[in-house]
This record gives sequence, structure tokens and C-alpha cells, in this order.
Amino acid sequence: MSPVIDLNSDLGEGFGRWTLGDDEAMLELVTSANVACGFHAGDPSILRRVCARAAERGVSIGAQVGYRDLAGFGRRHMDVDPAELVNELLYQIGALDGIARVEGSRVTYVKPHGALYNDAASNAVTAAAVAEAIALYDRSLPLVGLAGSELLVAAKGAGLPGVAEAFADRAYTAQGLLVSRREEGAVLHDPATIAARCVRLVTEGTVVAIDGSTVSVAAQSICVHGDTEGAVAITVAVREALEAAGVGIQPFTSPPS
Amino acid sequence: MSPVIDLNSDLGEGFGRWTLGDDEAMLELVTSANVACGFHAGDPSILRRVCARAAERGVSIGAQVGYRDLAGFGRRHMDVDPAELVNELLYQIGALDGIARVEGSRVTYVKPHGALYNDAASNAVTAAAVAEAIALYDRSLPLVGLAGSELLVAAKGAGLPGVAEAFADRAYTAQGLLVSRREEGAVLHDPATIAARCVRLVTEGTVVAIDGSTVSVAAQSICVHGDTEGAVAITVAVREALEAAGVGIQPFTSPPS
Amino acid sequence: MSPVIDLNSDLGEGFGRWTLGDDEAMLELVTSANVACGFHAGDPSILRRVCARAAERGVSIGAQVGYRDLAGFGRRHMDVDPAELVNELLYQIGALDGIARVEGSRVTYVKPHGALYNDAASNAVTAAAVAEAIALYDRSLPLVGLAGSELLVAAKGAGLPGVAEAFADRAYTAQGLLVSRREEGAVLHDPATIAARCVRLVTEGTVVAIDGSTVSVAAQSICVHGDTEGAVAITVAVREALEAAGVGIQPFTSPPS
Amino acid sequence: MSPVIDLNSDLGEGFGRWTLGDDEAMLELVTSANVACGFHAGDPSILRRVCARAAERGVSIGAQVGYRDLAGFGRRHMDVDPAELVNELLYQIGALDGIARVEGSRVTYVKPHGALYNDAASNAVTAAAVAEAIALYDRSLPLVGLAGSELLVAAKGAGLPGVAEAFADRAYTAQGLLVSRREEGAVLHDPATIAARCVRLVTEGTVVAIDGSTVSVAAQSICVHGDTEGAVAITVAVREALEAAGVGIQPFTSPPS
Repeated sequence: MSPVIDLNSDLGEGFGRWTLGDDEAMLELVTSANVACGFHAGDPSILRRVCARAAERGVSIGAQVGYRDLAGFGRRHMDVDPAELVNELLYQIGALDGIARVEGSRVTYVKPHGALYNDAASNAVTAAAVAEAIALYDRSLPLVGLAGSELLVAAKGAGLPGVAEAFADRAYTAQGLLVSRREEGAVLHDPATIAARCVRLVTEGTVVAIDGSTVSVAAQSICVHGDTEGAVAITVAVREALEAAGVGIQPFTSPPS
Repeated sequence: MSPVIDLNSDLGEGFGRWTLGDDEAMLELVTSANVACGFHAGDPSILRRVCARAAERGVSIGAQVGYRDLAGFGRRHMDVDPAELVNELLYQIGALDGIARVEGSRVTYVKPHGALYNDAASNAVTAAAVAEAIALYDRSLPLVGLAGSELLVAAKGAGLPGVAEAFADRAYTAQGLLVSRREEGAVLHDPATIAARCVRLVTEGTVVAIDGSTVSVAAQSICVHGDTEGAVAITVAVREALEAAGVGIQPFTSPPS
Repeated sequence: MSPVIDLNSDLGEGFGRWTLGDDEAMLELVTSANVACGFHAGDPSILRRVCARAAERGVSIGAQVGYRDLAGFGRRHMDVDPAELVNELLYQIGALDGIARVEGSRVTYVKPHGALYNDAASNAVTAAAVAEAIALYDRSLPLVGLAGSELLVAAKGAGLPGVAEAFADRAYTAQGLLVSRREEGAVLHDPATIAARCVRLVTEGTVVAIDGSTVSVAAQSICVHGDTEGAVAITVAVREALEAAGVGIQPFTSPPS
Repeated sequence: MSPVIDLNSDLGEGFGRWTLGDDEAMLELVTSANVACGFHAGDPSILRRVCARAAERGVSIGAQVGYRDLAGFGRRHMDVDPAELVNELLYQIGALDGIARVEGSRVTYVKPHGALYNDAASNAVTAAAVAEAIALYDRSLPLVGLAGSELLVAAKGAGLPGVAEAFADRAYTAQGLLVSRREEGAVLHDPATIAARCVRLVTEGTVVAIDGSTVSVAAQSICVHGDTEGAVAITVAVREALEAAGVGIQPFTSPPS
């Protein structure tokens, strides 16, 4: 049986007059769309447009939930009370799900964004709040998180499906963690290099770490960025390399048929 | 068969540190809670608290949708593009419904707030956008609007149940419309007077207009305000007078059992 | 004496993660920068960056004030109470002025944005509120408005300098008003055509209206758009044509020396 | 010479429809008004109303600056980049100062609010950002901070006047720090007790710590809360006790005459 992988990307991240990335192009390339839910990016009309196009294309819709911080794009850590965080995530998931349903689809997974993603990757209390919100909303919804992170521990604890993801354009430490963006070489830019790493990740379950060692990374999804320079070109290269290697590219969850 | 009426009130209208009205007290008195959805008032934790208490008390939960205007409390007319308005309403309804479901209930009707209510009462385009959003979300959800207004025309046009409401504490014109708040005598304050008018409205289907004439008003629900001075006392007086007159007080929709 | 004209453009209109237009390039071309003040666009770091660069370049800084509507970019009419509008404008002017002063410049004029500009062009009450805010803040600050509009009437009434502006890329009616954007041909796109019209406007004080007639337009400033496709190229063409025609391009107000 | 003290209080903390505390009553009692600047509370009309009344009463106006977090009332720590924080504070100070000047007064000091106050009390980088913003705006403006905190160290480092404050209703540790609100007895409620502590603080420069020991606290201002239950009654008691003890109650800075 040939290996399969999901490609996910953050989409719907404009707001009002402001656009970010090329949602249309990325929706032709990825299998899972992490749609911003309005707290750090995304407005209702953007949400609906992305959901409509994702539904047409058979792309899964995930709730890209985040802190309430438009000015900071959800990238700043905030000390949100966990009980309040649960409610803020419920609100965002419900809002997107209502719109997805109108377009004949629905929210089929949840992936935290930005600082919330990072906080929940390392902080068990935050991770548990994320998992609690999802479990309250729908215990069948997978939680997407960094392979090996607290998010996946929390998913398991809450009885949720956990989906481990890797990052196409990020360097890894010898321990299998992401190299901090503050360090040189943390972000890769060459499409061919990124594509080759993705193939290796899927077919061998390994990446070459920044120190040259080989490290195991078990991932069911690869995150490709949609808002960086060259994002579309990188994603095209990743898809083509994966397909050339015989890898099936499909959502980890099936959109409603 | 004895007459019945629903009592609805705007609740959940605080935001963060700020509170408004006495939600707890009003939830003991009304049968339908119009819960603010976060665009003009209400935050996710307030929404959840009100939904939890409403579910416990068997009070119906309605989506009190409004313009995106926290600073103006949704009371300022905004020229929102109708297609965008539809999406903003879908977002709000879905957000509240997700939270209501977590508390074992659900959104069972929609009532626009403030300037959106007024705009949609008289403007057919705005009314149609409100009705379209509801119909897209769930065609079985009633739309609550002013008796005789465009909102109810639009509900009918969209195949939605329409629920006509009257206002307990507002004076009426001889044409059965509300006297503008800018005119003297537009708002009534005496609990006994308000209660007597409510009894007459339910038992006879009439109100005495500001010019002394008698006018017919057919309403399935009476709106009582929760944030005015003496709100709780007025609502207690209304309930007691209705019960003394043999009127059954019950939601126009039944919450899920 | 050779004719002179000011070129103004809306700048600083990003927000947080989102950018809009090419502020750097436009600051090389215009003589007056209408800097968004945070209510409809612009955040404090953007404001400071634009003010710093404008101060370096000797570009005048104007307060581009607007309605409190990030989601609608200030382009939606809102029924703001005039007294409240005055306060909202004072707040925006003061905020920008504080930042401009830190960069060794200051706010030297005010120009309303979007729906506020349009409302104040035709509605005397709104125009008076704009003028009142400026007069309260600093009666020496010019108010920039559409030639022939209520804004300039209100400026005069409040004892403020009024600066009439024309639009480089907009078609005019035979009455000297702007053709509505909803009509075909309302917006011009060809740089050479736009440049030639600007030269004629400055040297002859006329434009050819959409019906072919010639109409007088007296303007001390020409607004060039910074966020449309080809904005920079159009502005380059306008500057070059004006300079070739011997027109001096300079701010209508001098930045502090 | 008789001892003197300033009484400061957080005012202007409503937003739109929502009110908080009794600004009118507190402005009769305090000598310095920390006016919220719109990022965590306060809207332009509230700012203007408080500034007008403060100017009438000869109460000093301070900029109560905070994180951009209306939903959290500025009480949640946020990881704001220091350079961006400087700009956000400049924006807030300028906005309030513009309004204060319209009312014939001006901003005469700055006091951070909520989480920003706490962060800057213990974190030298945050404290330096606060001091930098003030120094950029006007190096003569005092920075009000907790006695013994990093805020006052940063003020000194930036060449700003520092004003040490104590809290009327908070318990102190034997080290002269505030007992955490999470601990029992951290907040005092009895007006007479609070008033007696204030007198001792001013006349002897000491407080009785929670462990019964006596600790020195040198403060030029006492913060009284305006939004707690009994706030006005407590402040009346404090004033009366101070006056009975012969303490002069006056601003640490004089409002413009």
C-alpha cells in the first residue's frame, strides 16, 4: 500500500480590506484548509468564501482558532484564563461550523494558531483547555498539533483523535523539535529542498536535523505556509515531488460526501 | 382555552469587565432569552453562562444578532452590504448555537438588535438579508420582529416562521407603530400601567394608543427590557398581572427536552 | 510665477500583520501624507514609521480620520452622533500628532476618510462636526475636502483654512462633481491620461467632464491613490508630467523646519 | 510643615454603553485622575467628559495606559514587543492629551494599568519601554509606579520624575511588596481600617505588614480604587481621616493654571 499524507495550510487570514496569501491558489493544492475564525484574522465573508471554495474542491475545513488579538495576528502570548479560553474556542468553532454547513461542508478538525499553538504545544494547561473546547463541541473532531507536543497528549487525555503534523519549511533539532525562528537556518526557502524533505518525511518517517543527524518524525499531515513569499511555488514543488514518489495526497479526514 | 404569551428580554449584554442588567433575575421571569452574540455586546463566557442558566430554567435561547459595533452597542445604523450582513449574521448565530448546544440547548429563534432591528423593520432589503441568513442556517428557526414590520414580511418570503412581538413599555401610535423615543411619553415607566397594558394586549389584542384611540396589535411575544432602571420590578409586575388574568406564560418555541 | 500644486495620498493604511499599498514608494512622490489614525486602519507602529519617513522627506503629515470601523475600512456610513464624532476625531488627531511630534514633525492638516469624507461632503451636520473637532484641537490646521463640498463650507464657518482637492483618477460630471464609482468610466486607469488631466487641472483650472464638456475645478491639492493597482506608476507619471509643464510640486503647508 | 499626599484613582473606565464606577463622585474626592485611554477601557466621549470635570475641579489628569485588550480590560499579560509597546503608549498618551488640552488642561503624568502595571513593576524591559514612551512624548511627565518597583528604576534611568505610590486597600508583605490577590487578606474592605493605614503611611511612612511587622513605605501618592463595592465610602473615609490628621491632600503635580 502506498503512503499517504495530508497537506494543510492556514487560509482565510485576511480581514476586511486586507488580504493575506493566495487562498484560491492554495485551495487547489492542499487537502486541509485551516480557516481563521475571526479572533486573530478572518471575517465572516472571508470565512464563507473559503468554505465555499473548499467545499467545491473537496478540501477539509478545519477551525484555525486563536487568541482574541487582531492587532497582533494571534502571535502574541496572552494570559487567558483557561475557562475563558475554552469558551472563546467554542465560539470560534461554532461560528465557522455554521458557515461551513451553509456551504455543504462542516468543520472536520481544529488547529490552534500562532501563540496559542505554541503555548499549547508546551503548556499542558493550555493544551487541556484546547482539547476541552473541542471535546465539548464534538468529541469526534481531531485536534491537529505538533508531533510530540502537549497538544497531542491533551487530545488523547480528552478522548479526541490527535493528528500529528510536521512543517515543510522548518528546520528540526536533533530532538525532533522545531528550531526557533530566532536562530539562523530555522526557515527553509528553497522549493526543491523543502520538497525533498517532505518526501523523506512521508516515505521514511525521518528528517535531517540541523546538526546533520537523522531524526524520526511521525506525521499524518504536513503544514505548508500560505502567506510567505513563494508559498504557492513551494507548495507546487512539494505536491509534485510527493506525487512523483508515489505518495497519495489526501485529507486525514474526509469531507462530508 | 386560556390565552398564552411569551416574554422575551435582551440578555447577555455585558462585555468583559462590564456588566449590564441582571441576567440572573430576568432568567427567572422571562420565557425567551435574546442572547447577545458578541458583535455589539456579549463575550463567549457571558454567552455560555446565560445559555447554561437558560437551559436549566427551560428558557428558550434566541440569537440577538447585531451590527459589528461594540463602541455603539449596535445602536447606530451602519450601511453594511446585504451580502456581508448575511455572513455576519450566520457567524453570530453559529457561534451562539455552538455554545447553546454545549449547554444542552440550542438557538431556537433569531431576533435582530438595536439599529439592525429598526433598519430591518422598515427596510425590505435589510429585512431580506436577516431572513436569508436564518433560512441558510436553519429554515425552522423563527424570526422575531415588530408586529406589522418588514421583518415579518421577509420571514414569510423566506419560508421562515415569523413571530410578532409587542413592547411592554412603549407607547403606540394610532397606526399600531411605536412612538419614536424622541417624543414625549414614548417610554412608559409605571409597573402597574405597563402590566395592565400587557394583560389587555394578550386578552383583547389591543393597546390604547398615545392619542387615546384603541388599536389592534397581534403579538405572540412581549419584549420586556432588562437593562432599564426598575427592569426587574416591571417584569415581576407584568408576570403577576398576566398570571392573575389567567394568561399562560410560555415560550413560543419549546426548548429541546 | 509658475503654478504650484500639492500631491496628497492616503498612507499608513495597513494594520498589524496586514499591509496596504507601498508607503515607502509613495512617500518619495507625494508632498502630503494622509496618515490613517487607527480607527479604520493604521496601528501605532505603522503611524510612527510613516511619520518618521515623512519627516525625513519633508512630506507634510495629515490626520486621515475616519469612522471606528476596522472591518469596513471606514467605508461604511455610520450614524454617529455628531457630538461623539467630534470626540472620536479629537482622539485620532491627538494620537497621530503625539507620534508625529516624536518624529520631529506634527499634524499639519486633517482630511476625513472614506464614508466620513463622503458624508461630510454632502451633509452639513457631519461637516460641521469635522470642522468643530479641528477647530477645538488647533484652529490653524487646514481641513482638506472635495472642491465645492460642504466640508469646505464648514471649514469656513469654523474659521479654519480650507484646502480644496481634486482627484487624479476620477471622472467628473459637467457640474464638477465626482462621477459615482457605480457608473462606468468613473475611475481612470491610464497613467498618461491621468497625468495629462492633472496638468490641465493645475495650469488651466479645468477638467474635461465625462460628457465632454469643460468644467472649472479650483484645487490646491490633487489626491493620488496609493492602494490601487499601478498606484506608484500613475503617481510617477503625474509628477513627471507636472514637472515637465513647469508646475512646482510642494505641500500646501510647510512642515516644521 | 504639615505632610501632604496625593490621592489617585482609575477613572473613565467605561466603554460605550457600559459604565464602571462613579467618576463624578470620585472626582470630588481625589486629586489625580488616571484616565483610561481607550485600549483597555475608555472611549473618546468618556475621556472628554472626565477631562472636562477634572479640569473644572483642579484634578490632575494622568494617562492610564494599558495593553490593547478591551475584552480582558487590560488585566491579561500580553507578550507585546517592546518597540511596539512604546508606540502603543505614545498613541494613547497623545490621544488623551489632545482631549485634555481641549478642556483647558493636559496630561500631567502617566500610570500604566492592570497587567502592564504589574509586568512593568517586575520586568525591567517592560518598565524601560514605558519610560521610553513617556520620555519621547515629554520628559517632564512623571511616571507613577509601585514604590520600590522596576517602574521607578526605569523612570530614573530615562530621566523622568518618578512618583511612588501605595495602595490604600491592599495588604503588604514584610518586604514592602503587595500581598498577591490570590492570598487571603490581600484586599482590605473596612473603611476605618483603610483610612487609619493611610494616615500612618503619610505621617509615619510605615504600614503594618500582613505578618504584624512594621515596614517602611515611601509614597507620594495613594491609589484608591473607584470600581470596587464601597469605593466612594472608602475614599470619603480616607480623605476625612487624612484631613483630621492635618495632612494636606493635593496633586503631586499642579494642573495648568
